[in-house]
Amino acid sequence: MKAAFYSGNQTFELKSSQPEPVLPGMVRLKVAYCGVCGTDIHIYHGKMDHRVQMPQVIGHEVSAEIAELGPDVSGWQVGDKVSVRPLQPGADDPSDNGQRHIGKNLKFIGIDTPGGMQTYWNVPAYTLHRLPETMSLQLGALTEPLAVACHDVRLSRLQAGENAVIIGGGPIGVLIALVARHKGANVLISEPNATRVALCQELGLAAVNPTATDVVKEVEVFTKGAMADVVFEVSGVTAGVQTMTQLARARGRIVMVAIHSEPRPVDLFRFFWRELQLIGTRVYEPEDFDEAITLAASDELPLDQFITQISPLDAIQSVFETIDNNPAGLKYLLQCTD
Amino acid sequence: MKAAFYSGNQTFELKSSQPEPVLPGMVRLKVAYCGVCGTDIHIYHGKMDHRVQMPQVIGHEVSAEIAELGPDVSGWQVGDKVSVRPLQPGADDPSDNGQRHIGKNLKFIGIDTPGGMQTYWNVPAYTLHRLPETMSLQLGALTEPLAVACHDVRLSRLQAGENAVIIGGGPIGVLIALVARHKGANVLISEPNATRVALCQELGLAAVNPTATDVVKEVEVFTKGAMADVVFEVSGVTAGVQTMTQLARARGRIVMVAIHSEPRPVDLFRFFWRELQLIGTRVYEPEDFDEAITLAASDELPLDQFITQISPLDAIQSVFETIDNNPAGLKYLLQCTD
Ligand SMILES: NC(=O)c1ccc[n+]([C@@H]2O[C@H](COP(=O)([O-])OP(=O)(O)OC[C@H]3O[C@@H](n4cnc5c(N)ncnc54)[C@H](O)[C@@H]3O)[C@@H](O)[C@H]2O)c1
Ligand SMILES: NC(=O)c1ccc[n+]([C@@H]2O[C@H](COP(=O)([O-])OP(=O)(O)OC[C@H]3O[C@@H](n4cnc5c(N)ncnc54)[C@H](O)[C@@H]3O)[C@@H](O)[C@H]2O)c1
Ligand SMILES: [Zn+2]
Ligand SMILES: [Zn+2]
Repeated sequence: MKAAFYSGNQTFELKSSQPEPVLPGMVRLKVAYCGVCGTDIHIYHGKMDHRVQMPQVIGHEVSAEIAELGPDVSGWQVGDKVSVRPLQPGADDPSDNGQRHIGKNLKFIGIDTPGGMQTYWNVPAYTLHRLPETMSLQLGALTEPLAVACHDVRLSRLQAGENAVIIGGGPIGVLIALVARHKGANVLISEPNATRVALCQELGLAAVNPTATDVVKEVEVFTKGAMADVVFEVSGVTAGVQTMTQLARARGRIVMVAIHSEPRPVDLFRFFWRELQLIGTRVYEPEDFDEAITLAASDELPLDQFITQISPLDAIQSVFETIDNNPAGLKYLLQCTD
Repeated sequence: MKAAFYSGNQTFELKSSQPEPVLPGMVRLKVAYCGVCGTDIHIYHGKMDHRVQMPQVIGHEVSAEIAELGPDVSGWQVGDKVSVRPLQPGADDPSDNGQRHIGKNLKFIGIDTPGGMQTYWNVPAYTLHRLPETMSLQLGALTEPLAVACHDVRLSRLQAGENAVIIGGGPIGVLIALVARHKGANVLISEPNATRVALCQELGLAAVNPTATDVVKEVEVFTKGAMADVVFEVSGVTAGVQTMTQLARARGRIVMVAIHSEPRPVDLFRFFWRELQLIGTRVYEPEDFDEAITLAASDELPLDQFITQISPLDAIQSVFETIDNNPAGLKYLLQCTD
């Protein structure tokens, strides 16, 4: 088998190795596809070296077939098609409030522990979600980011007919837009990258460029003065935070999906004045994975167009370099089968 | 009749004048007591001169008896005891989302229009809430700030048994604490002013001084590691905003009651990481006024202790100077009856 080890300094080393023994409660997966996530790019840039134990295999957006079941594992069969919910909850902390998917002692599989950019990958059986037999394993690899979008839309309490604005048309923003539209919302994306704006439009999503136009005015026109019921902040930049409070109507919900590495100036006056709400969202719960799989299997979202490129695992180094030089692509998949 | 006119430059002028005619839909009130609000102090400091049409009578925390009914007014009788919900909604705006109490064209009576620091005061009949016959008119003057607290606690979705931390033990923070405790929550106040800390303790409210102790540690101990289900930010200062995100448990709700005059650095990472929620709250809706009156009439809150001083309207200038020099008092009432 092959495995791609991140070894620091923007470098992956491909090694051939032996599959590890399958411990109780675990399964060995034969990985089909592993998507490259923004987080993987962060790791590549050395920004998460404090969490990654180099050399380490990374990757957490996986579709696979079960290759072997560990002792004590029931309910699964060799050959089953699955995707992996890469969360390994730790001991409960009283401040977790029962929210195991964001617990203090949670480990994120593929960051804090080895990931899926390899031929065979051992994961706890409780992380598995069954993929329908008829579903392509390429779409299956989109389950994880799509589950993020399902979680964000669910926690936003978005209703059919509501107006939703998405700040940031990267992979996560576009998936949120697709899920929100599928729920019956009127969706507008704000995205400065011209290539991504064009991609949104190919997906049938209305998109405006905030550096070329006044987004507040655009949202006023788009919503006939009602402004946004829900704003998703998915840009991660100060300008997005500045805009989000201006786009929401009274009692509007602003969903904080993006990871802001430092405190940002926030217009708290406007939170008071218009009784706005901010809702932080992180990863997903099991039901979001189920919803993502149902949605992807339904063929009701244009997910094929969402995949920018599929490359063999051998090409991992050049794939990461390509993404780095062309931040306008959406989803790059690595084909991990031998 | 007497009326106290704010005429700029930290000055009130007392004038004797004639009651105005009572127009259709209006009632003439004989004002009993008018509380001094933080907003009135802001006006006194000249910070709201853009909204106040000087010389203008201000004040909006009023208990009164009905002195005369305008044409078309039904459901009320001369002599009825009332308090006033000082909101005058304007034309609906589509971005108001049906929230008339915070509408774009709302006028705040006593700021944008004449207020209650006078013997007779004409207000729209729809602003009135009936006070029980047996209720003292001094307590009646607390209805308005108590309705703010009821609104904030209602929008926080606070449940009995939950832990609530209030950042800022001014009049509004203390009322929120009293209402939250009455709902069955475990309440802790963070307040740096030693006199106010002592006042809280006299009211039976646990309070800590954030300049003398580590509030995060205190909340950890107070909640046995569970941290706060709800945090009320009622301080209005940068330090309060910095602390609020550290005190909330996973999925905790942070209620933004304070008016922050400029954008503040907010730890948005923590909103994402712990799925926190921020809930902006402003003034009150009719049901909050009803609840405030029921609560005040029930004698279950130690509201008498909440009143620092009662002075005749004639003394208005010295009352404002006293508040300015002693920010540790809680509620000052002006007795407005001739
Ligand atoms: N909450 C979660 O669990 C979770 C999960 C995955 C990703 N994320 C975060 O979500 C964010 C988006 O992820 P992504 O993979 O799509 O990242 P990305 O960087 O590809 O997307 C961000 C987009 O925002 C755009 N942008 C930049 N400035 C803007 C502006 N002023 N207005 C509007 N858009 C602007 C960029 O051009 C880019 O297309 C990141 O912060 C990521 O860390 C969060
Ligand atoms: N949302 C609304 O509709 C509404 C209504 C009324 C008042 N307000 C706002 O609520 C806030 C409180 O009103 P108030 O009348 O009680 O004002 P206040 O100024 O009397 O109270 C603020 C308190 O915060 C304390 N404080 C200062 N620094 C602190 C810190 N680091 N940590 C904790 N406490 C700290 C002060 O000592 C003071 O006691 C104000 O911002 C006011 O404008 C909002
Ligand atoms: Zn991911
Ligand atoms: Zn007030």
